[in-house]
Order: sequence, then structure tokens, then C-alpha cells
Amino acid sequence: MERLEEFFEKIITVKLSEDRKAVNIIDQTLLPFEIKRIDLHTKEEIWEAIKKLRVRGAPAIGVTAAYGMAVLSSGFEAKDYDDFYGKFMEVKAYLASSRPTAVNLFWALNRMERCLISNRDKSLTEIKDILFKEARDIREEDVAISRSIGETGFKLLQDIRDKKGRAPGILTHCNAGTLATAKYGTATAPMYIALEHGWKGSDMHVYCDETRPLLQGGRLTAFELSEAGINTTIQCDNMASILMKSGKIDIVFVGCDRVAVNGDSANKIGTSGVAILAKHYNIPFYVCAPGSTIDMKTETGGGIPIEMRDGKEVTEMWYSSPLGAPKADVYNPAFDVTDHELITGIITEKGLFRAPYGDSFREFFS
Amino acid sequence: MERLEEFFEKIITVKLSEDRKAVNIIDQTLLPFEIKRIDLHTKEEIWEAIKKLRVRGAPAIGVTAAYGMAVLSSGFEAKDYDDFYGKFMEVKAYLASSRPTAVNLFWALNRMERCLISNRDKSLTEIKDILFKEARDIREEDVAISRSIGETGFKLLQDIRDKKGRAPGILTHCNAGTLATAKYGTATAPMYIALEHGWKGSDMHVYCDETRPLLQGGRLTAFELSEAGINTTIQCDNMASILMKSGKIDIVFVGCDRVAVNGDSANKIGTSGVAILAKHYNIPFYVCAPGSTIDMKTETGGGIPIEMRDGKEVTEMWYSSPLGAPKADVYNPAFDVTDHELITGIITEKGLFRAPYGDSFREFFS
Repeated sequence: MERLEEFFEKIITVKLSEDRKAVNIIDQTLLPFEIKRIDLHTKEEIWEAIKKLRVRGAPAIGVTAAYGMAVLSSGFEAKDYDDFYGKFMEVKAYLASSRPTAVNLFWALNRMERCLISNRDKSLTEIKDILFKEARDIREEDVAISRSIGETGFKLLQDIRDKKGRAPGILTHCNAGTLATAKYGTATAPMYIALEHGWKGSDMHVYCDETRPLLQGGRLTAFELSEAGINTTIQCDNMASILMKSGKIDIVFVGCDRVAVNGDSANKIGTSGVAILAKHYNIPFYVCAPGSTIDMKTETGGGIPIEMRDGKEVTEMWYSSPLGAPKADVYNPAFDVTDHELITGIITEKGLFRAPYGDSFREFFS
Repeated sequence: MERLEEFFEKIITVKLSEDRKAVNIIDQTLLPFEIKRIDLHTKEEIWEAIKKLRVRGAPAIGVTAAYGMAVLSSGFEAKDYDDFYGKFMEVKAYLASSRPTAVNLFWALNRMERCLISNRDKSLTEIKDILFKEARDIREEDVAISRSIGETGFKLLQDIRDKKGRAPGILTHCNAGTLATAKYGTATAPMYIALEHGWKGSDMHVYCDETRPLLQGGRLTAFELSEAGINTTIQCDNMASILMKSGKIDIVFVGCDRVAVNGDSANKIGTSGVAILAKHYNIPFYVCAPGSTIDMKTETGGGIPIEMRDGKEVTEMWYSSPLGAPKADVYNPAFDVTDHELITGIITEKGLFRAPYGDSFREFFS
């Protein structure tokens, strides 16, 4: 517990700088090899930090945007409320353009706007203070939300441990961890809450998909979980199938960026593949979703726009640093076996074979 | 066609050096950015080249091992056949230890041994020549095998093109291409044979899983196909799900390292996951398997040992070169949507929700 609190203090994702003139974040593009905190003073710096994933994860982006609006608003020199509101809306629209799929970004920005409007009869000095308080409330509410998600997920882990009599194997994809939120993360909250309830790090084993192309799983999730003392293994995304087949995975927790009304959930690329594998292997698959990611205006996943990113992320990154958290183990099988029931046909030099294969193989290849 | 032949001549995977004192290979760990041919003179160099994947792909490994046995045997100073045979068997056992899952390696080595035994009454000088001829036969037979596989696969592509009236979208994983064999590859043979039959490169579109950790798909398959003028796109392994969902993929071709009697097929890590996705999206999934990879002594996939490799391949490689073929396109969506039917539950701060989600979302989050 004490160690856990120290850990959380060390890597707080977003906070206000002491002079209240900047948003202070960990530059997550440098993790896990350099822990560098940077001050974002201007709207351009905040926009760039969100766009370039220096700060990422729906809730952390929301908190950053909220603190950003408070910091930037405090610098406005406005002659009256209307002037102040105009400047506020201009900055808000600009920040909203940094990540088109991050519904939490819009949610936080809209909440800051509502706060501003409902305090329009206050003095501009008072309003500036109120905006800081609102941003802090957004952060503290996020901590409470993560804790609640974690308690629910922890019960699922307890059930597995009780039923199977061993440390649950957990697979997660991308980073929906403390580094994505204000404290416990979403997909990682069950594990951190387990530690708070007295579990040891060895009472569970978390397998982190490295999550290409930006490797948030290998760099971030594996970093934070292994730093927190939890048994942690990194695997390439394409190893999830054999990992599940091997019986090491009891449950999957993933985060999400946006949930449609019917439950379709947008999350980091590859999540849908993990879900299909989990279904195939009969492993429960849970999405950890703060209410702010549930988009009641979008009926199905078909209505969620998918951001296409620069191909260079795939082919030209990662020259200068290792690709995974140094304290995590790595699972690296070279092959896997595809069950014959999944194969439409096997093409050999003697033609196309279809199931059942044995007899025709014996005829042609014995 | 002419361009295709030039292409094949440029990147022949394995050949005998002109002085017959070395096996000459392309160092595939340097592709696609440096085309460097290296001479393997000693058994240690041949072992290392197979182990370190400088030469890889079941048939190419077989051809390398066969040429290797011929080259090394030609250097034996033996007093009689038994002495020669003893030295041969020592080298054979050593080379066999380089890749435990490569049944083709053992097949080629055993064939060279059988050739030796059946010529035991010849002079050692004659035997040395015969071993060179046997290795060349292994290579030429491989070309014929690939061509035959390609013709069968090409018919499947023709069917798709006829039925859908558009260029087939093909997904492949890892490299079972010309770089893995003597000429046409196995999983790529249908595409090269299509070119031989007069298809243009734009008459098909091949999507190459980059294939972590060693990126053979992005570096090798995408390289050879794009060099051959075929429409080629690289995607991260975890993008196959959304790619299939988008309707871009009509068929999957993969190679294999070993096929069990029941059809279970061992291939590069991640292949089983691709098969599960293909089944989910109702896309035909074909394994391209030379008869030499069909292992009649192994009843099911459970009997195929899986090689576990160094974790550093996952976390510490790829500092010094780009990660994909420069002439290929890249597909890089940031998110995908997980269908609600694949989700066991959605955990929010207001508890655990199960399908159908809409009504409870409306109750708690509207």
C-alpha cells in the first residue's frame, strides 16, 4: 500500500503547475525510459501534447483539457464577460480539434463551458478561480470513477482466484492505466484496487499486448504494472491467440475511447481482434468504461469515426529506445498452431485438400 | 513477365557460390534496405545463418541445408566411405540443431544422407559431385512445387475476381514468399503465377501483416511483392480485424512450417489468430504447404514443439533501420470498434452492465 502510494505520486499523469500558469504532464512518448515532466503553457503546446500522444487516454486527455482551459482562461485579458466568453470559446474549439475520436475531450471542454456560463454573473477574477476548481473537480471525480470501476473488476478477479485456486491471468491491450487517467486507470483499476485490498503483486499475472504501432502496452502498461510490483509480461499483439490457447489467460480487461448505445466499443486498434480471440477461446472480455465515454448520441459502432494515422508510425518509428518496459518479462513464441477446423483448405503441389485431411494426406504423402 | 524474371534473378534466395566452396544467400535480416549477399563457408556460418534467420522459410532452409551438406562434404578429407559417412553425420546432426521446428530442414538433411548411402559404392570424388547434384535437384523440385501450389491458388483468385468483378484483396502473414523458397514462394505463389498468367500488379491487392517481432511481413513480403509491381499494403498484426471487417479482404493465404496429419498447421506466431479472425468474418483461409512440410509422424498440432525465442527480439531490436518496405503503402487506423456481441460486460463507475446495454445506459447515463 505504502509503496503503491509512492508509485502513484511519482507518476501522476496530469497536474497543475505550482504557479498555476501551466499544465504539467509526464511526456508519455518518452516512457518508460525517461521520466520527464513538461509544462504546457500555451494552447499550441496543449494541442500538440494531445495530438502527439504526450498525454493520452480518454480521462487523462479530459483532465488535461480542463486544466488547460483553466490555465489559458486565467491569462485572458478581457474587458467583460462576453469578451472573456468569446476568447474561451475560441480556445475551446481549438483544443477540441486535437483528437477527433476522444469524446472525453469534448465532454471535459463542454463541462468547463457550462461551468463558465453558470457563473456568468460573477467577476472575471472569481470566474478564473472557479474554472481552476472545476478542473480539479474533474480530476478528483475521475479518481473516484476509476476506484469504482476497480472495485467491480476486483470482484471478478476474486471470483477467478476463488474458483481456480491460483493467481488470475489477465490480458490487457494498449494502456488504460494510471498513465491514462488521474489515478487507478480503467482497465488496470481492478489490479491496483486488488493491491489496495492486500493482494500481493504475485497474486495475479498481467499479460500486456505491446499494442503496435505506438507500443503503449509494452512501454506504458507493462511499465506501470511492473513498477507497482505486479507480475507483468509483454507479448506481441499476434501472440494473444497462443497465450489464450495455453490457458494462461482467465479474463481480459480493456479500456475504451467511446461506447455506443448498443455497447459497441471503440478502443485502440486491435481490441476487436482480442475480443474475437477471447470469444473463440471462451475467455470473458470486459470493457472498462467511465460513464463519460458512453456516447448516448451514437446508436451503434458504425457511427463512430475511425481516425486514420500517418503510415510512418508503422514503418519509421522507434529507432532510439528499447520497445518495452525493462522490468517486465517477455513472452516470445516463434510459432503457433492453427487448428484444422479454422482452415478452409490446404494447398499443396498435389492440389487443394479439404478436411478431413488425414486420409488424403496418407494417400498422397506417405 | 520480363520484369518478373528480372526480379526473380535479382533476389534469388540461395545459390551455390561459383567456386562451389560456399552457400551464397541474401542476408534477409538486412532486407529491404540493403541487398547484401553473403558466402557461408563453414558449418558454423551455415548454422548461424539458419538460427539467426539470415535465411528463413521452410523450403529455403531446406535448400540451404542441402547445399551446405554438399559444400561441407566436398571439403572432407576422408580415408574411406565410412570415415566420410561419419564426418557427414556429424555435420548433419549439427545443422539439424539450428531450428527445432523446421521439419523441412530435417527432410533435406535426410534426403542428402539417403543420397549418400545409396551411392556408397561410388568413389568419394564421384560422391562429392553427386551430393552437389542432389542439392541442385532439391532446389529445382522446390521451384516446381511452388509453381504447382501457385496454379491452384491462382484459380481461387480467378474465382474471386470473376464473382466479385474486382481485384481480389489478399491477406498474408509473415513471409512465405520467394524469399522463403527457391522461386515463387508458397503463400505468394498464387500472386506470382497470376502475373505469369498476364494479370497486372493492380489486378490484386495484397495486405501484409507486418508480423512482429521480426517483421518478416513488413520487411520481406511487402518488399518482394511491391518490387514485383503488385499493389501492396503493410498493416500491423492487430489491424487485421478491422481490415477484414471493412470488406477489403477476400482470401487469406499463409505458409506453414509443419502440418500434422489432421491438418493442424504450425506457422509463424500469430497465424492461428488470423485464422480465428477469418472464420469470424467468414473469409476463406488457406494454408500453402509443400508436401515436405506435411509430417505424417505427427497426428495433431499438439505434437508440434513450439520454439520459444529470446525476449529481446520483442523489446530490443530494430534501432537502425525502417520497419517496412519503402514502396508499400501502410494502413494505420488508430482505433477499431468491438462489436457488443463480443463483450462479456462493460464495467462503469455505476457497476457492471451486460447486454442488452441500451436501456440500462439510458437509465444510468442519460
